[in-house]
Amino acid sequence: MTERVIRVGMLGCGTVGSAVARTLSSYGDDIARRAGVRIEITRVAVRDVARARDVPLASQVFTADAASIVDDPDIDVVLELLGGLDPARPLVERALAGGKPVVTGNKELIAAAGAALEAAAHAGAADLAYEAAVAGGIPLIRPLRESLAGDRVTRIIGVVNGTTNFILTQMSEHGSRFEEALAEAQRLGYAEADPTADVEGFDAAAKCAILASVAFDTRVTDADVYREGITRLTARDIADAARLGYVVKLLAIAELDEDDVSVRVHPAMVPASHPLANVRDAYNAVFIEADKAGQLMFYGRGAGGDPSGTSVIGDLIRVARHLTYGGRMQGADGTGLGRRIRPMDDTHGQYYLNLHVEDRPGVLAEIAEVFGRNGVSIERVWQEGFGEDAALVFITHRAQEGPFQKTVQELRERDAVRAVVSLLRVEGEE
Amino acid sequence: MTERVIRVGMLGCGTVGSAVARTLSSYGDDIARRAGVRIEITRVAVRDVARARDVPLASQVFTADAASIVDDPDIDVVLELLGGLDPARPLVERALAGGKPVVTGNKELIAAAGAALEAAAHAGAADLAYEAAVAGGIPLIRPLRESLAGDRVTRIIGVVNGTTNFILTQMSEHGSRFEEALAEAQRLGYAEADPTADVEGFDAAAKCAILASVAFDTRVTDADVYREGITRLTARDIADAARLGYVVKLLAIAELDEDDVSVRVHPAMVPASHPLANVRDAYNAVFIEADKAGQLMFYGRGAGGDPSGTSVIGDLIRVARHLTYGGRMQGADGTGLGRRIRPMDDTHGQYYLNLHVEDRPGVLAEIAEVFGRNGVSIERVWQEGFGEDAALVFITHRAQEGPFQKTVQELRERDAVRAVVSLLRVEGEE
Repeated sequence: MTERVIRVGMLGCGTVGSAVARTLSSYGDDIARRAGVRIEITRVAVRDVARARDVPLASQVFTADAASIVDDPDIDVVLELLGGLDPARPLVERALAGGKPVVTGNKELIAAAGAALEAAAHAGAADLAYEAAVAGGIPLIRPLRESLAGDRVTRIIGVVNGTTNFILTQMSEHGSRFEEALAEAQRLGYAEADPTADVEGFDAAAKCAILASVAFDTRVTDADVYREGITRLTARDIADAARLGYVVKLLAIAELDEDDVSVRVHPAMVPASHPLANVRDAYNAVFIEADKAGQLMFYGRGAGGDPSGTSVIGDLIRVARHLTYGGRMQGADGTGLGRRIRPMDDTHGQYYLNLHVEDRPGVLAEIAEVFGRNGVSIERVWQEGFGEDAALVFITHRAQEGPFQKTVQELRERDAVRAVVSLLRVEGEE
Repeated sequence: MTERVIRVGMLGCGTVGSAVARTLSSYGDDIARRAGVRIEITRVAVRDVARARDVPLASQVFTADAASIVDDPDIDVVLELLGGLDPARPLVERALAGGKPVVTGNKELIAAAGAALEAAAHAGAADLAYEAAVAGGIPLIRPLRESLAGDRVTRIIGVVNGTTNFILTQMSEHGSRFEEALAEAQRLGYAEADPTADVEGFDAAAKCAILASVAFDTRVTDADVYREGITRLTARDIADAARLGYVVKLLAIAELDEDDVSVRVHPAMVPASHPLANVRDAYNAVFIEADKAGQLMFYGRGAGGDPSGTSVIGDLIRVARHLTYGGRMQGADGTGLGRRIRPMDDTHGQYYLNLHVEDRPGVLAEIAEVFGRNGVSIERVWQEGFGEDAALVFITHRAQEGPFQKTVQELRERDAVRAVVSLLRVEGEE
C-alpha cells in the first residue's frame, strides 16, 4: 500500500492538539494500514515555544509564527485548533485561498463564518472539514452531509453541551440547586471558572448554527440562534417535570418550518421515554428526523481531547486520502439555499406553565379566557394545593411563541394570578 | 455545478429498490445540487418484467437479464438488491472484476463473502459499498470505517434485529408470551410468516459478522458467529429481569479479547440505565466502545424501504462522486488482519441463574461449592420463595463461558437442584 506521508501543520497545541499528536504517534501504523496514508505532524504553532509539553513531537517542530506554517509549501494540511475568530479566521482563509486544505475543531469560527469559509474552500479547490466542531467525538457532520444526502432532514434536537447536561443531571438525580450543581461541575473540571459560555447557551448556539447550516444546506450563524440558558431553572422546575414524567434538558433545536429555518437553544421538558431523556452527565446526543430515514440518534462524548481528537483524525485521514488518491469533500460551496430564519415569535412550541393563583370559583374561567383569546389551546390543566398554596398547572397544545408570551404577560397582570411559578417549554412529544 | 448523470443498473426491485427509485425521482434535484452529481436508474433486472410496479420508471428499463446490466458499458454503477447468495454473488463479482462499482444492501452476501468481494473490488479498482446491509437507515459502516479510522474499536453491542426487538418490547411492556408477541409482530408486518431468520438470530448474526469485519479490520463470516435465538425466553424471564432492573434484548456482540475476536448473538439482560435498554419496538441501535472516542451509540430504523433506501442513496452518491471527481472508497482491501475467532467456550460473560431448589439447610453451600470448584465467582445470591417454591437466584461476576456451562451442567445433576428455571446472560454492566 502507498506510504505517502501527509504533513500536517498544527495551529495550537492544547488538549485536543496534544491528544491528536499522541494518537498519531501511537496508532500511526494502524492508521497507515487502514487509511492507506501516513499522517505526521511536522510543524506546530504555539504562543510559547519554550513551554514543556507532554507530546511526542521534537522541539524543533514548534514555532511561534503561525502564518509561516500556513505559507509553508512543505505543509500539506493545516489543522486549526486555536479556537475563537482571531487569528484563526485570517489564517484559515489564507490557507484555503492558497489551495491548502484545512481541518478545524473551532466551533466559534464555523458558526460565525462557515459559509464564507466553505466558499473560500470551494474557490481554492481545497477541503474544509470540521467534524470536531460539533459534539466532539460523535460523527455528525459526515453522516448529516453524506449519509443523509439523499434524504430531507426536517428537525434536529441536540443535547450538545456536556457541562449543562452534567449540571441538569445532578439537579435531576440528586435534587441539587443550580449553584450546587455548577460548583460540582467546576470541581470535576466539566465547567470553566467563568461558565457563561456553557450555562447561558452560547456554546450550544454555535453548535446549533453549524448543525442547521449542514442539515438544511443554508447559512445560519450563531447570532441567528434564539438563546436561553439554564441559570434560572430551579430545583422545583426539575422536580415538577419529573413528577409529570419529563426530564429537563438544554436543547439545541434546528427545524424546518415550511421553507424557513427555526434555530433555538433553551431548556425544555422532554418525555422520559424519549431517547434524549436517557442522555446523562457530560454525554451529548443529537436526535435527527428525516423524511425517509425517520428518527435517528447519535450519542457519545461531546468534549475532551481524545474524543474530539478522534474526529480530527477522521477528518485528517479523509483530507489526506483526497490528496493521495484524488477526490473532494462532499458538501456545500458556501452559496446554500439562503433560507429565511424564522423569528422566535413566529415559531411554534408546547409549554408547561405553573401559576400560583387565588383559590376561588371563577379563576380557571378567567385564566382560560386569556389563553383562548390569544389562540393558545390547552391540552391539560389541573389544580395543585389549595388556599394560599393553590396553583393551576397547564400544558398547552403546540402554539405560536408570540401569542403564548403575550398570554403569559397578560396573566402576570391579573389579580387572580399571584405569581408565575414555572414556565418551561416541552419538546419531543409524539 | 457539474451535471454529469451517473447511470445506475439496479438488480431487483422490491421494497428497498422501489423506495430508492421513488426518492431519486422526487428528490433528484436536491441530490444533484448537494452532491454535485445526478443519479438515474436506467436499467432494472426483475424476474417478471410484465408485473405492474409502483415505481416512477419507464417500462423499457426493465429486463429479466441481470447479467446484461452488469456487462452494459452504459451502466456506471450496479445496485444489487436481490438478497441471498445466488445469483447475487456471481453478478457482483462480475461487476467488480470489470471495474464497475457496486452498491448493495445484501447482508447475506457481505456476511458470507465480504472479504472476497473487498478483494475483488480492490483488484478491479472499483468501489464496493454496503451501508444498507446493517441496520437499514442508520449510518454505521461509514462512521466505523472512516470517522473512527484513527481510533481502536474494542467492542460493539447492537440491537440489530427489529423483529425480535419488537417481540421483546411486547413481552416486556405487556407481559405477552413469546408466541403472542410473535403473532402480533406478524399481524403488523414486522415478522415473516416463517420467522426463523429473525427469531433464531440468523439475521443478527450476519450483521454481527459485517460489523466485526469492519470494526476490527478482519475477516468474520456469519458462520463464525455463536448464535442463540429468543424462542426459549419466557414471560417469567422478562419479568424477573425487570424486577432486578434489567431489560432483555437480543444482542449482537463483537469484541476484541486480547487480539482475538469474539462474535456472538444471544439474548441478554441489559441494565435499565444502559443506552440500549431504551431502544424499543422495531428500532435498532448499535453501541460502540473505542479507546479514544469512548462510548458511542447510533440509533434509528433498522429496516424498511425508505430508511434502507436512504443508506443506499448515500452510498450511490459517494460512488457517483468518485466517478465524477475522483477518489476511492476508504477501507479494506480484503486482506485484513486475519484475527483469530475465539471459541465461545473461551469467551467471558456475566450470568443470571435462577434455580428451583430443595429448601433445606446446606443447599446453598452445596451449590456454591460447584460454582467455586469451576472457578465461577458469584457477585450476588439470594433466596426467593420457600418450601416447594424455593429458588436460589445467582448473578455471577464475569466468568469464562466453558466453566460456567460446566457448572450449570453439574448443577442440573444435583438432587438439591429441582430445575434450572432461567439462565440469562448479563451485558452492559459497568
